[in-house]
Amino acid sequence: MDLTKIKKPVLLLDEKKARENIKTMKSKADKHKLIFRPHFKTHQSAVVAEWFRDAGTDRITVSSATMCRYFLENGWDDITVAFPVNPREADEFNRIARRVNLNVLVSDYEQFVAFSAKFNEDANIFIKIDTGYRRSGIDWNSYPDLVRIYDLVNETPNLRIMGFLTHAGHTYSVSGEENVLKIFNDTRSKILHTKEVAPFNNAIVSIGDTPSCSITGEFNGIDEIRPGNFVFYDLMQVNIGSCNTSNVAAALAAPVVSVNRHYNELIIYGGATHLSKEFITGSEGEKIFGKAYLLSDEGWDVESEIGYVKSLSQEHGVVQISNHEVCRLKPGDIIAVMPVHICLSADLMKGYVTLDDKVITDLCPK
Amino acid sequence: MDLTKIKKPVLLLDEKKARENIKTMKSKADKHKLIFRPHFKTHQSAVVAEWFRDAGTDRITVSSATMCRYFLENGWDDITVAFPVNPREADEFNRIARRVNLNVLVSDYEQFVAFSAKFNEDANIFIKIDTGYRRSGIDWNSYPDLVRIYDLVNETPNLRIMGFLTHAGHTYSVSGEENVLKIFNDTRSKILHTKEVAPFNNAIVSIGDTPSCSITGEFNGIDEIRPGNFVFYDLMQVNIGSCNTSNVAAALAAPVVSVNRHYNELIIYGGATHLSKEFITGSEGEKIFGKAYLLSDEGWDVESEIGYVKSLSQEHGVVQISNHEVCRLKPGDIIAVMPVHICLSADLMKGYVTLDDKVITDLCPK
Repeated sequence: MDLTKIKKPVLLLDEKKARENIKTMKSKADKHKLIFRPHFKTHQSAVVAEWFRDAGTDRITVSSATMCRYFLENGWDDITVAFPVNPREADEFNRIARRVNLNVLVSDYEQFVAFSAKFNEDANIFIKIDTGYRRSGIDWNSYPDLVRIYDLVNETPNLRIMGFLTHAGHTYSVSGEENVLKIFNDTRSKILHTKEVAPFNNAIVSIGDTPSCSITGEFNGIDEIRPGNFVFYDLMQVNIGSCNTSNVAAALAAPVVSVNRHYNELIIYGGATHLSKEFITGSEGEKIFGKAYLLSDEGWDVESEIGYVKSLSQEHGVVQISNHEVCRLKPGDIIAVMPVHICLSADLMKGYVTLDDKVITDLCPK
Repeated sequence: MDLTKIKKPVLLLDEKKARENIKTMKSKADKHKLIFRPHFKTHQSAVVAEWFRDAGTDRITVSSATMCRYFLENGWDDITVAFPVNPREADEFNRIARRVNLNVLVSDYEQFVAFSAKFNEDANIFIKIDTGYRRSGIDWNSYPDLVRIYDLVNETPNLRIMGFLTHAGHTYSVSGEENVLKIFNDTRSKILHTKEVAPFNNAIVSIGDTPSCSITGEFNGIDEIRPGNFVFYDLMQVNIGSCNTSNVAAALAAPVVSVNRHYNELIIYGGATHLSKEFITGSEGEKIFGKAYLLSDEGWDVESEIGYVKSLSQEHGVVQISNHEVCRLKPGDIIAVMPVHICLSADLMKGYVTLDDKVITDLCPK
């Protein structure tokens, strides 16, 4: 990579690491006889999608009709839209369903009624189950609500039940293998209970979150996994324990525009419109919006952590660095920042440059 | 506006309110004989820029070389780039400076040396003064640092000192007129001290933040204001006291995809990729990512607040609403969400629809 070409913030990808992350997760799915249906909302890129195809992926997950259309037009034909299906987009889903094997998500009965009244193509229904994250879905223990949806599907010739789907998003707010596994095991036992009391037409069980999929080695009863973040990983996943810093495949290249040698701070061109305002909390209660590393033509070196992003404005980042590092850096240099949440940073940047200078810009539109 | 056309999240603009906000601030500048140089990073739109032109604006502020080029290509020719000038973009600044009256920002001596070595066109220099926000700039009391920059400018024939520029961004973290005015008065007295001890060639004094510019009625010693956010305002500005909810000219139209009648929650299609993760803290310590209102073809009604956005995922928002409102809403409906920080939401959405159905999409590229 030729760093002199980088004039403003660029989201760098280490393709080798990303391909390794894909291969590792795919092998795990194969080993446990799981359907591998990775979530493409993280990268939103037809080019990165091909790295998955190269590793044997043929079924995918997305989070909107817009993203579904983007990937179908890039050659994907078996897609789950893992977002409570939006009744206002029923017409677009009709058009999409004529071209792909479509799975949609139902999270409550009223929503399903509103959607199915306007949707008349073939599709499979995943019932979203709330196993404790408390964002959306039918409570795992609410048999009457499940049966109402099941009955409506059975009355609707173009639809069939695909299975039960859950997202244990509360793994994102804990740290350490033990805590992730506790949530995973709780989630699994709840959704398996759901399946037991509502044994609909060989319904499958699909789980999603990257922490659970990265950490657990025991998937009994699970049929499908839908992790997304793992393709690149990020600082939040390091913090949770899903990966090491050496697995993280993306970092923001950010020009240093000013150095405050009195306060040991760098001002970088790289702000909330590049990294997002997502933060993790450090051991002393400080907000951390990213970690900073030295950057060379070979990429960022995770052994060379120089500090952390302590605050963000629209375009500015303020990086607190150590006393001896501040002597090595000057305005005009460039550093790497590992984002806290790569899904949001990728969505903001709408493009990547790989360490071997491939420019990827044709991401999914908003 | 025809709400049936809205299928997915759309950032709505009330053009009438935005034009009123522009007119009010421009009149205030005129009354106090201030140069009005509004910051265009908030809207990033050539169409909205024309609303400013209609109100007599001819000088503007932006926050990057990219934004500078976008607005120069849309007919603006007197532009301050209010971001510590990036030495890596010196070539682009050379090209820009051939076409506009360019003012750039210097926040430290080393940066200026790195930049001026590669910049050879005519430009004016604003020296960034840190009056207490502690993000970037020369300390207001640091005479030797000011003189070093001044001397270098004087040795460089293509450059001249324009003035001292500060941004009291710490007004964003307080609430109430009194607290904003305390910071404003402190900022003013510090930057006027700077000007007094370093009386460089009739340097002007430029201040920027929307809270100070909205609230104060007394600008003695100030020559120029550069507020940006006020064109639309947002929930953070309401919270600070810069405006009322009725002045806010932008809101996200968000489809309701699911209703949880047990917990009085709506799931909306409208998440961190539409609103950003910026939040304010409520009276009971709760995070508020936006406030929710009923929406009709006439726009959102600020008298009809129904709740607040309590959490955000990439595409989902969870809205906590009152017990009686939950009965009126169903999946397939649409609501309005007043963003916490409109600059970030506008940057994410990259487009607007006005209440009279004008679609604005050609915003500044990343």
